[in-house]
Amino acid sequence: MAQELPSWTLAELVPLLGGELIGNPEQRISRPIEAGQSDSEGICFAESEKFFQRVKDSQIGAVILSQPIEGLTANQILHPTPRLAFAKFLHLFRRPLPLSPGIHPTAVVDPSAQIDPSAKIGPYVVIGPDSQVGARAEIHPFCYIGDRCSVGAGCVLYPHVVLLQEVTLGEGCRLFPGVVLGADGFGYAPSPAGLMPIPQVGSVELGRSVDLGANTTVDRATVGKTKIGDGTKLDNLVMVAHNVQIGPHTVIASQAGIAGSATIGAQVIMGGQSAVKDHVSIADRVTLAGRTGAFGNVESPGEYFGLPAQPVRETLRQMAALKKLPDLVKRLQAIEAALDKLGES
Amino acid sequence: MAQELPSWTLAELVPLLGGELIGNPEQRISRPIEAGQSDSEGICFAESEKFFQRVKDSQIGAVILSQPIEGLTANQILHPTPRLAFAKFLHLFRRPLPLSPGIHPTAVVDPSAQIDPSAKIGPYVVIGPDSQVGARAEIHPFCYIGDRCSVGAGCVLYPHVVLLQEVTLGEGCRLFPGVVLGADGFGYAPSPAGLMPIPQVGSVELGRSVDLGANTTVDRATVGKTKIGDGTKLDNLVMVAHNVQIGPHTVIASQAGIAGSATIGAQVIMGGQSAVKDHVSIADRVTLAGRTGAFGNVESPGEYFGLPAQPVRETLRQMAALKKLPDLVKRLQAIEAALDKLGES
Amino acid sequence: MAQELPSWTLAELVPLLGGELIGNPEQRISRPIEAGQSDSEGICFAESEKFFQRVKDSQIGAVILSQPIEGLTANQILHPTPRLAFAKFLHLFRRPLPLSPGIHPTAVVDPSAQIDPSAKIGPYVVIGPDSQVGARAEIHPFCYIGDRCSVGAGCVLYPHVVLLQEVTLGEGCRLFPGVVLGADGFGYAPSPAGLMPIPQVGSVELGRSVDLGANTTVDRATVGKTKIGDGTKLDNLVMVAHNVQIGPHTVIASQAGIAGSATIGAQVIMGGQSAVKDHVSIADRVTLAGRTGAFGNVESPGEYFGLPAQPVRETLRQMAALKKLPDLVKRLQAIEAALDKLGES
Repeated sequence: MAQELPSWTLAELVPLLGGELIGNPEQRISRPIEAGQSDSEGICFAESEKFFQRVKDSQIGAVILSQPIEGLTANQILHPTPRLAFAKFLHLFRRPLPLSPGIHPTAVVDPSAQIDPSAKIGPYVVIGPDSQVGARAEIHPFCYIGDRCSVGAGCVLYPHVVLLQEVTLGEGCRLFPGVVLGADGFGYAPSPAGLMPIPQVGSVELGRSVDLGANTTVDRATVGKTKIGDGTKLDNLVMVAHNVQIGPHTVIASQAGIAGSATIGAQVIMGGQSAVKDHVSIADRVTLAGRTGAFGNVESPGEYFGLPAQPVRETLRQMAALKKLPDLVKRLQAIEAALDKLGES
Repeated sequence: MAQELPSWTLAELVPLLGGELIGNPEQRISRPIEAGQSDSEGICFAESEKFFQRVKDSQIGAVILSQPIEGLTANQILHPTPRLAFAKFLHLFRRPLPLSPGIHPTAVVDPSAQIDPSAKIGPYVVIGPDSQVGARAEIHPFCYIGDRCSVGAGCVLYPHVVLLQEVTLGEGCRLFPGVVLGADGFGYAPSPAGLMPIPQVGSVELGRSVDLGANTTVDRATVGKTKIGDGTKLDNLVMVAHNVQIGPHTVIASQAGIAGSATIGAQVIMGGQSAVKDHVSIADRVTLAGRTGAFGNVESPGEYFGLPAQPVRETLRQMAALKKLPDLVKRLQAIEAALDKLGES
Repeated sequence: MAQELPSWTLAELVPLLGGELIGNPEQRISRPIEAGQSDSEGICFAESEKFFQRVKDSQIGAVILSQPIEGLTANQILHPTPRLAFAKFLHLFRRPLPLSPGIHPTAVVDPSAQIDPSAKIGPYVVIGPDSQVGARAEIHPFCYIGDRCSVGAGCVLYPHVVLLQEVTLGEGCRLFPGVVLGADGFGYAPSPAGLMPIPQVGSVELGRSVDLGANTTVDRATVGKTKIGDGTKLDNLVMVAHNVQIGPHTVIASQAGIAGSATIGAQVIMGGQSAVKDHVSIADRVTLAGRTGAFGNVESPGEYFGLPAQPVRETLRQMAALKKLPDLVKRLQAIEAALDKLGES
């Protein structure tokens, strides 16, 4: 069980990451560290004053920076995008979740399902009729793929992912544990016998390179498709309701909720616990700060915050004014008293 | 794998849905569509001006309406409740999730469990001691039914549903993937050794035709029962804490949370991300708009909004006034300056 | 299937719970009840006026109190901490979820995994390479334990728990169904090809006696550890992002969210749906009321509420003032009119 620990000299490492070394090429680097941690064989990156200071206060193997910092004694790698260079280093430490090639004998795969020979299907996986799994896809234990689903090449379904019916994933999607795709949209019609479920017969379609965080749910459309565009990333515990349309390269943080038939543009950012009302439309390149609730359409790019969503600056001004409000009430009373006096005099 | 695609003439379809045809009985209808989509064999419904306009702008097979619309060239089906008629049509497109009759050989069923012969138990299901599964119930893969649970006739447990102990489901409930019923309520007592869990020995009881959305959780009671009434529908990622009582025919949207021992009446509507504090009581026929937080009892039917919950109109008035607040601060300063001048003169 | 129902006389029960009996030692007690419920063999506890009144209005076997109540006819057990005494009684009713000793034949356990002989591994469990399961630990069906994970002695993993890579649990942790530990942190770097995932190669470490509620997610660190301290308890559907540090004996209610690299102190209480922004620090013994959002550091112990988090009293004062705001607008207009008149005269 002894693990081979990787290790590089800076002379070996810099060509892998790109950039220019200022310092000792013989310095050995063994692991990534957080800025501020001390570790004589550790490497971190720093992109702002706050992190420069932390790095100065620690003993480290090397730091990746966009320009040299005065007074820094550590070895430095100058790189135009330190975060990307650090990400490259982190790639050297990725270790895939164990999964054997082929179809595990305990997997229950419908004879009509088409599994690419290069896909890996783990123990205790169920794959239903007329579903497809593409090349090099990884389907980890306890995943359920229902009927007429399609998993694109290179997708990773971590353990405990559920795809119900007619769910289509583009290439290279990553679905973290507990993700549920294709549950019925939340639609009912009142009737004398109570609420009747409106049958949900639509589908879910994810583009390429979509990531969905743990326990996130995306409901199938009533009719048509619930869609998430290429390169869009959702964090954990996010709710995407039926018939929602999300554009490409959008980022949605944890616990955000998007109600039925809402439309979210491209390169949108939604903060944690934010929400968009049903049938509302959010334009491209809009940022909704955490906890923001958009009741109405947001039509211009920019940063929005609050309930309802307003330009950040306006909400912050209102919050500042609200802090003064109890005092204002007193000042108003004083004015009214003064006016009364004036009136009497 | 070729699928038989269903198709009807309007002459065949109208008797199935009810209503009166205005248009060509020979028109062929093959699929439901969203209002606004063009599809010469598609059918949709429309109930408001916004959707009438969309329908006018599209080429479709037919539309279901409550009364004829001027200037509409499409075939029309007049029906008193277009949404219900459309729901009937959608039923024709439902396709059950695959599940074979009987008990799958991989299911692990305790000998003391009672499984109705007409129930379907899928692969990789675990059913514990003294549990019961009623007639025609569907238990999909990876469901866990612990001990002394009871699943009513006609219930559907989608893949990955967990029932722990003493969970009772009435007839016809639908539990979507990732639902967890009967986890311990969140109760601790401080002690010198830290927080001691208060044993949670109560149960969970769902009435008839209750739907619970994906990844929703309902905790068992400390003592007694956590209860959800007949016909009540919960969306995804909803939290129902220990000892909560929810009345019948209530609708709770995604990511709403109900804290311990709260009581929610009948025909209540709770919007997305709304919340009710512990021990608080919400009367019948109350609507809490999305993101509303009820700190105190709400005793009269009606619509409420805000934090804390207030009648919608009041909250909207306050929100409107808040927008003016930064300006009010300036006006107040101007008044004070004017009064100072008056005082000096 | 007949179950042996336990039952005690008060003479037998009081020595088990501690405290002093005022009443009939022959009274038979069979079950715990909620205060206010009538049951001649039931026992409850009461710690406040509201519950004293409920108990007076009901017919019960006995009540546990810290001091005698006037006018109460029921048998009383006087105990310094009624809630703890009641919790002791509840322990007598706990019934463990069924799980057989040893490793179930359907469990898929990597040969390199080390399972303590006293641990119980249920059906359909997957345990990966180099993982360890400690003494007396219970791993219920459908749990997935990935590689290099460590489960401490006495831990209980309820059905459907997922541990991915390098997740370490101290002794006596309880993980409720649907918990996901060690999914990738939500970190991406913009690149010309879209958002590139920053590899998440850190780990998750839980101290002793940590409880995590159903469907709660704790992400692995980018580098280093996401940590939760000894004795800390999280409710259902909570989000803990990468690199978060949570101190010991902290309590976090349902649907709360903690963003990346935030630090939460010891003995902190976070109410339902509350949130802490990324990189923000919350001091020891801080209480954040439900729905509170902390944007900035909270440095002193005490109770905070609102968005942004402020001392409770301040937020309540602002809320009270906000209710008056529409009226204030009118009063301000009246003053301006009066001043105009004064100016004209």
